[in-house]
Amino acid sequence: LIDEIIKKSKDVFSILLSQLNSEDKSPKEIVRFLSEFILNELKEDEENAYYINFFLTINFQKTYRSNDTGHLEIENLLNIIKKGQKEGEFKDNVEPWEILTIFFTSLEGLTNGKIKYKNEYKLPSSQALLNIFLK
Amino acid sequence: LIDEIIKKSKDVFSILLSQLNSEDKSPKEIVRFLSEFILNELKEDEENAYYINFFLTINFQKTYRSNDTGHLEIENLLNIIKKGQKEGEFKDNVEPWEILTIFFTSLEGLTNGKIKYKNEYKLPSSQALLNIFLK
Repeated sequence: LIDEIIKKSKDVFSILLSQLNSEDKSPKEIVRFLSEFILNELKEDEENAYYINFFLTINFQKTYRSNDTGHLEIENLLNIIKKGQKEGEFKDNVEPWEILTIFFTSLEGLTNGKIKYKNEYKLPSSQALLNIFLK
Repeated sequence: LIDEIIKKSKDVFSILLSQLNSEDKSPKEIVRFLSEFILNELKEDEENAYYINFFLTINFQKTYRSNDTGHLEIENLLNIIKKGQKEGEFKDNVEPWEILTIFFTSLEGLTNGKIKYKNEYKLPSSQALLNIFLK
């Protein structure tokens, strides 16, 4: 099981990474992709909550320690949010790192809910998890 | 330790409950109070993360199972959010239950980060956790 979780987590990381580096997508489209991808995985199979929880903890949670932004993907994501703010789509009264923190901690809490309450647990729509960050 | 966690959790519940029922506060003021209160507790003493995590799991996480809203406080909170939407302060392109879910799952994720990374973990401002739900 652990091998499977690690493998899935790595695969997802590759998919998400390729999205972060796609020049033709707007910041809103990229955040929508992240939100849809992760919530769909959770909706599709409650077992996916285990690997997504692992994925979020390893890749994101850790990098929010103090001012540590020396992590390529987080740096990419922060730049995407900044661009979205500059272009007027994203809220600019919340700092980019705060947007990312709220986004990923909420997803982490949702995976915990899914792990605990299985298919009884109701997930918000991916649109909702995007909309709160938009103006 | 467990007794202390349960006691603190109960005390906080009383404080929050009195706030939810204060007629003279606007929805925005109530959500600001919740956000400030919980984040200040986390900032003040990292040990508080344990009782807040317990508090959130017991009181809120559980009530988000499917359409279960038969819980007085959640019902109150939902009505507060609805009122805030009607008055035009809160975003109305996100459902009230989705706002609450994102709010509390994010706080749950933040307590997890604080438990794991102690004072190295950087919390968003309470203003940020309010602003994302406002227009």
